[in-house]
Amino acid sequence: MRPNERAVNQLRPVEIETGFIKHPEGSVLITVGETKVICNASVENRVPPFMRNKGKGWITAEYQMLPRATEQRTIRESSKGKVSGRTMEIQRLIGRSLRAVVDLDKLGERTVWVDCDVIQADGGTRTASITGAFVAVVIALGKLVDDGVLDQLPITDYLAATSVGVSQDGTSLLDLEYIEDSEAAVDMNVIMTGRGEFVEVQGTGEEATFTRKELNELLDLAEAGMIELFDYQADAIGVYKDMITNQNVEGKDSE
Amino acid sequence: MRPNERAVNQLRPVEIETGFIKHPEGSVLITVGETKVICNASVENRVPPFMRNKGKGWITAEYQMLPRATEQRTIRESSKGKVSGRTMEIQRLIGRSLRAVVDLDKLGERTVWVDCDVIQADGGTRTASITGAFVAVVIALGKLVDDGVLDQLPITDYLAATSVGVSQDGTSLLDLEYIEDSEAAVDMNVIMTGRGEFVEVQGTGEEATFTRKELNELLDLAEAGMIELFDYQADAIGVYKDMITNQNVEGKDSE
Amino acid sequence: MRPNERAVNQLRPVEIETGFIKHPEGSVLITVGETKVICNASVENRVPPFMRNKGKGWITAEYQMLPRATEQRTIRESSKGKVSGRTMEIQRLIGRSLRAVVDLDKLGERTVWVDCDVIQADGGTRTASITGAFVAVVIALGKLVDDGVLDQLPITDYLAATSVGVSQDGTSLLDLEYIEDSEAAVDMNVIMTGRGEFVEVQGTGEEATFTRKELNELLDLAEAGMIELFDYQADAIGVYKDMITNQNVEGKDSE
Amino acid sequence: MRPNERAVNQLRPVEIETGFIKHPEGSVLITVGETKVICNASVENRVPPFMRNKGKGWITAEYQMLPRATEQRTIRESSKGKVSGRTMEIQRLIGRSLRAVVDLDKLGERTVWVDCDVIQADGGTRTASITGAFVAVVIALGKLVDDGVLDQLPITDYLAATSVGVSQDGTSLLDLEYIEDSEAAVDMNVIMTGRGEFVEVQGTGEEATFTRKELNELLDLAEAGMIELFDYQADAIGVYKDMITNQNVEGKDSE
Amino acid sequence: MRPNERAVNQLRPVEIETGFIKHPEGSVLITVGETKVICNASVENRVPPFMRNKGKGWITAEYQMLPRATEQRTIRESSKGKVSGRTMEIQRLIGRSLRAVVDLDKLGERTVWVDCDVIQADGGTRTASITGAFVAVVIALGKLVDDGVLDQLPITDYLAATSVGVSQDGTSLLDLEYIEDSEAAVDMNVIMTGRGEFVEVQGTGEEATFTRKELNELLDLAEAGMIELFDYQADAIGVYKDMITNQNVEGKDSE
Amino acid sequence: MRPNERAVNQLRPVEIETGFIKHPEGSVLITVGETKVICNASVENRVPPFMRNKGKGWITAEYQMLPRATEQRTIRESSKGKVSGRTMEIQRLIGRSLRAVVDLDKLGERTVWVDCDVIQADGGTRTASITGAFVAVVIALGKLVDDGVLDQLPITDYLAATSVGVSQDGTSLLDLEYIEDSEAAVDMNVIMTGRGEFVEVQGTGEEATFTRKELNELLDLAEAGMIELFDYQADAIGVYKDMITNQNVEGKDSE
Repeated sequence: MRPNERAVNQLRPVEIETGFIKHPEGSVLITVGETKVICNASVENRVPPFMRNKGKGWITAEYQMLPRATEQRTIRESSKGKVSGRTMEIQRLIGRSLRAVVDLDKLGERTVWVDCDVIQADGGTRTASITGAFVAVVIALGKLVDDGVLDQLPITDYLAATSVGVSQDGTSLLDLEYIEDSEAAVDMNVIMTGRGEFVEVQGTGEEATFTRKELNELLDLAEAGMIELFDYQADAIGVYKDMITNQNVEGKDSE
Repeated sequence: MRPNERAVNQLRPVEIETGFIKHPEGSVLITVGETKVICNASVENRVPPFMRNKGKGWITAEYQMLPRATEQRTIRESSKGKVSGRTMEIQRLIGRSLRAVVDLDKLGERTVWVDCDVIQADGGTRTASITGAFVAVVIALGKLVDDGVLDQLPITDYLAATSVGVSQDGTSLLDLEYIEDSEAAVDMNVIMTGRGEFVEVQGTGEEATFTRKELNELLDLAEAGMIELFDYQADAIGVYKDMITNQNVEGKDSE
Repeated sequence: MRPNERAVNQLRPVEIETGFIKHPEGSVLITVGETKVICNASVENRVPPFMRNKGKGWITAEYQMLPRATEQRTIRESSKGKVSGRTMEIQRLIGRSLRAVVDLDKLGERTVWVDCDVIQADGGTRTASITGAFVAVVIALGKLVDDGVLDQLPITDYLAATSVGVSQDGTSLLDLEYIEDSEAAVDMNVIMTGRGEFVEVQGTGEEATFTRKELNELLDLAEAGMIELFDYQADAIGVYKDMITNQNVEGKDSE
Repeated sequence: MRPNERAVNQLRPVEIETGFIKHPEGSVLITVGETKVICNASVENRVPPFMRNKGKGWITAEYQMLPRATEQRTIRESSKGKVSGRTMEIQRLIGRSLRAVVDLDKLGERTVWVDCDVIQADGGTRTASITGAFVAVVIALGKLVDDGVLDQLPITDYLAATSVGVSQDGTSLLDLEYIEDSEAAVDMNVIMTGRGEFVEVQGTGEEATFTRKELNELLDLAEAGMIELFDYQADAIGVYKDMITNQNVEGKDSE
Repeated sequence: MRPNERAVNQLRPVEIETGFIKHPEGSVLITVGETKVICNASVENRVPPFMRNKGKGWITAEYQMLPRATEQRTIRESSKGKVSGRTMEIQRLIGRSLRAVVDLDKLGERTVWVDCDVIQADGGTRTASITGAFVAVVIALGKLVDDGVLDQLPITDYLAATSVGVSQDGTSLLDLEYIEDSEAAVDMNVIMTGRGEFVEVQGTGEEATFTRKELNELLDLAEAGMIELFDYQADAIGVYKDMITNQNVEGKDSE
Repeated sequence: MRPNERAVNQLRPVEIETGFIKHPEGSVLITVGETKVICNASVENRVPPFMRNKGKGWITAEYQMLPRATEQRTIRESSKGKVSGRTMEIQRLIGRSLRAVVDLDKLGERTVWVDCDVIQADGGTRTASITGAFVAVVIALGKLVDDGVLDQLPITDYLAATSVGVSQDGTSLLDLEYIEDSEAAVDMNVIMTGRGEFVEVQGTGEEATFTRKELNELLDLAEAGMIELFDYQADAIGVYKDMITNQNVEGKDSE
């Protein structure tokens, strides 16, 4: 029924390639089905003005699609001279989510810039960005631990994201690809931590609504998908895996 | 415990004044506690380019705070020359939510512009905007029915919004005012229809997370608050109340 | 002959409501006929770069119309990404006029921000803004005197504004409403102090001209209208009335 | 007392060089004392959208100072990415003034673009721009008559502008140069037609006020200066002088 | 002497991967040493306004670096709200160069958009962009031939680019990497066709100059490098190789 | 054959008028045929942020065309709110070229702003700008020497620029005017120093290419034209002529 005979509760194939670009402190190419996002984490030794002199760090994100990441070429935001509302929403979401699992006090007066550049889009670009960005941030901060700049990895838990939705015929689906997403009645992005708590739940019916029962089904699907995503992340993080503060990661136990 | 001895499941006082500004087709001043928003609905006899020649209408919203709506003066977005990410998120949310209860086919090739201008802010400005905007839109479209331009009010159901949240001590609260909102661990905006379905659920933990159990408590509080909000809206709508397509509005039955 | 049988030398009804918005130091809703403007004065404890280290203060103004303040919806300047020439002219005029009656030396290194937001427009929005803004500034600075921050109210005189014009049939009129203004051959804005001196005279013939005799008739009308406006202001200012330096206000003597 | 022993009612030397730049339909370099402005008039065979299908023409103006027109280099507005409020005020003023003496119906569906570029500034740049722009427009439209495109020169009268002001010691002065203007208590720009009527009067006291008596003295000075300016214009216009509709130009009679 | 013991007349290793992104009509990842650029060619069935109704096509290019393509993170141009002068220069150069080998008449009323996104930068990003873009354009247009949309590949010759320069010690070098480029006395970009003609020569001495003799040495080096680049391109183009109009490509003869 | 019977290797008449505008430290009106550019050099006693605390100076340039410098009026870049790619390219080129002959160490922590405003365009505006700007800079810096601010003129050599090109019939031409430039197959800008070295060579074939032989012919023409340009400059510089460090200027010897 779904493209590629995928089950309703089945994620698309996920790959997380680390060290993708040479300059950034952490660099990841995440592939979720046909969606591909370069997630680069850069560490800067200062914080934005509103965070100064608090002894705390900051994490901020920027998101962008290449013009031909999409089926039809989209106009470059730098050419238009302004960032769209959609882009702003997504980059605010990525930054806010990452801040939920980074101990900004332990980070010290540093800014982590996360750049998520979608080179190929097939649905779920914002959730793939978050899942990949988490890995890039762990690697970038892990290097600061390796270099003795930080005593401890200031990461309190895993963080991953996926989309779930309800199709026009009422079926709840995990990890929508573009063709499914564009026709869905309800679309929900769920961002969770390794210990199974929510960081963000954004459910939207465009010209449609959803019941409490549907909401619960969608959250069940998302929770199941997360367990797999944490596994992919743990493999990519490698040596830094044991430095994450909270080890009660569901789905990590089996490793 | 809460300011003004409010119960955890108690809305702030709500007033919806109609006919507030003389020019717009629908004009409302909504007051929720100390939050005051002017919601004006304007009807234009054409649609944006991407909607042309579909025989359907469109609803779009703009949101803005006056510089001194807030405790500290904020810089005017027109002076900065760009709209902030926060403003874009909110105006996209308002437009999307309204589209869930307006029958765009029945609206015909018309655009409804909704302008939500916050003149005084004390938390919950986006949810007050939605609750007030719904009334402004019903009045604007009701006049088109009165004038014989439309056969039928193209509104399928009531629509209201409220915020819920979890305080630092773990208490779930309905309708947060600014002092509560700024200290909350979790903040959630819930937008529902008269028949009790969700249009949008946006739960966010800024540097915090929330459990499935907390999510459920918050949704329970929101659902209870909605019933009251629909009553306030029904009173404000007056003569157009019976023209809303779906009459199974919870909490409306008792009227 | 004029709408509502108004005499050529008769102002529209004026109301000045103080304390309109809770956050600003001075907040006024001024109503002149059907024109309604929220005038908020905010005090900031620093001055713009070009005024630094002079021991003097500064007053600056911003002006804006809500999109549906007008009969037809106008595009929001924040959406267009730039402020129109008309808006710039008006906000420069408001700031310049207020500076004529504020003793910037006595104000000290503070900035008074005046925000004039037109929520309903029916002609004379810039002059209503000035008349209302004066009251908002007096209240904001009066509070600084109350709080012992300033020894003395740094206001040297009353300040009010009105429009006058010549209709197509050659009649000189006081306080034009929109329908009159849009058809006038000559339009003049006059800003005066309580002692009867001019701060600004701006007379304009759009595709028309005016004689010295007409100019004099218009100034006579404006001077007569001012006396009433100062009375409305004096009532609104209340307790701060006696703190204004110059007490030889024409038309105030009779109180 | 005044620089160069100028009398209070004496204009600075004026030169109007025509045919200054080869491409524009009308091109003038006007010199008023040390102020030099290039005024180019361009005719375009269409009107802006808001004027379409009315059978009428339009005149619009743009004004700009070269960065080193001034004593200190000013930042180029194209580099800042926006036009200042001052520039907008001036270009609106120039366009509005010219429209008072051009018969837009006779002009037909054409736009006259007037570009006033100040290459050297020493006070009175906006009034010099208007005085020079009038000549450029007459020449540009005169050529349309020469070419048989127009039957008649659609100019109803002469148009010139000058500044007047009150110095700190209370003296009324004609045609202020920069050093005088920057210290003046009152500054007034007066724009008049050949038959002695006002097109625009803009009197401003920056942190100062002026009496009705001072206003009258300033207007007397301006009227006297105009007569000379019309003479300079008449010489520059040359062959087109007799095509101006209204021949009752004061000060022209003697020619 | 050069990094990696490269000879002065030796190119860095070049790889041209085709079909890199799935959506674009032509998509290439070009790698020149450590410089990596995604070059996507998109075909649109219309031309920009200035080219309409001429029966000809158009090619335009956009260029961008990801923020962490560089050693230090650079600010995203979409966030700054404007495209830098450097970016504009480069994208104009890419478009202009490609137009030299595309027969715009045979292309018909179509626009080819070329997007060059630098994901990793190590010198020579503009020349790698041109070399890669040529391949992407050939593939995109080749598909139009395959699909019968075009009769013939509207490509008249090969096109490649490389940089050459003079080091501080006076040595002429082919294909500078970043460390060499940043210290070079003279930097030159050379763009050539398969038949050995120049499309563009841009030699620049930043705070330095170069003699005619040095210019000739640099051109000799560039010409030698081109022959290799055309070979890489021929391999990548594959089936479309024989469709290029001009077969007298130097260095191609041997294939 | 060429307009005005000019020989292929003949420059148009050149005039360099110094002291054109009174405020700038160096001000030149350069006329090359019908092309006229005002070149003003301003000295500021500080450097841009990226040059601070290096003990060195900086030179930067801005270029602009008046709207009617051209046959058809072009839209003002300040009105569009952004500088075009063409303008950016040119102003970067002017600044870079001047830096090749200014000893930035000897200049000290000062910025020289060069403003090139084209008041009439007939081809070769960028090269005329450079030739004129060199004179303006020498005069501005010469005054610093006169005033004892600098010990020595920090100019190492003459600098001039011209354009050369190949016409459609294959003739190489020196100093193209607009009608020639717009039809040329190849266009090249050459910037050279007094001792005969290149600062910049930019050869471009728009939809065309050029051979090595043509390149050499063009450079020969340019070199010949330079010798004349240096003579014009030497005359304009006057007293500062002997202060230029390098006196081996070709073509200067004969003076």
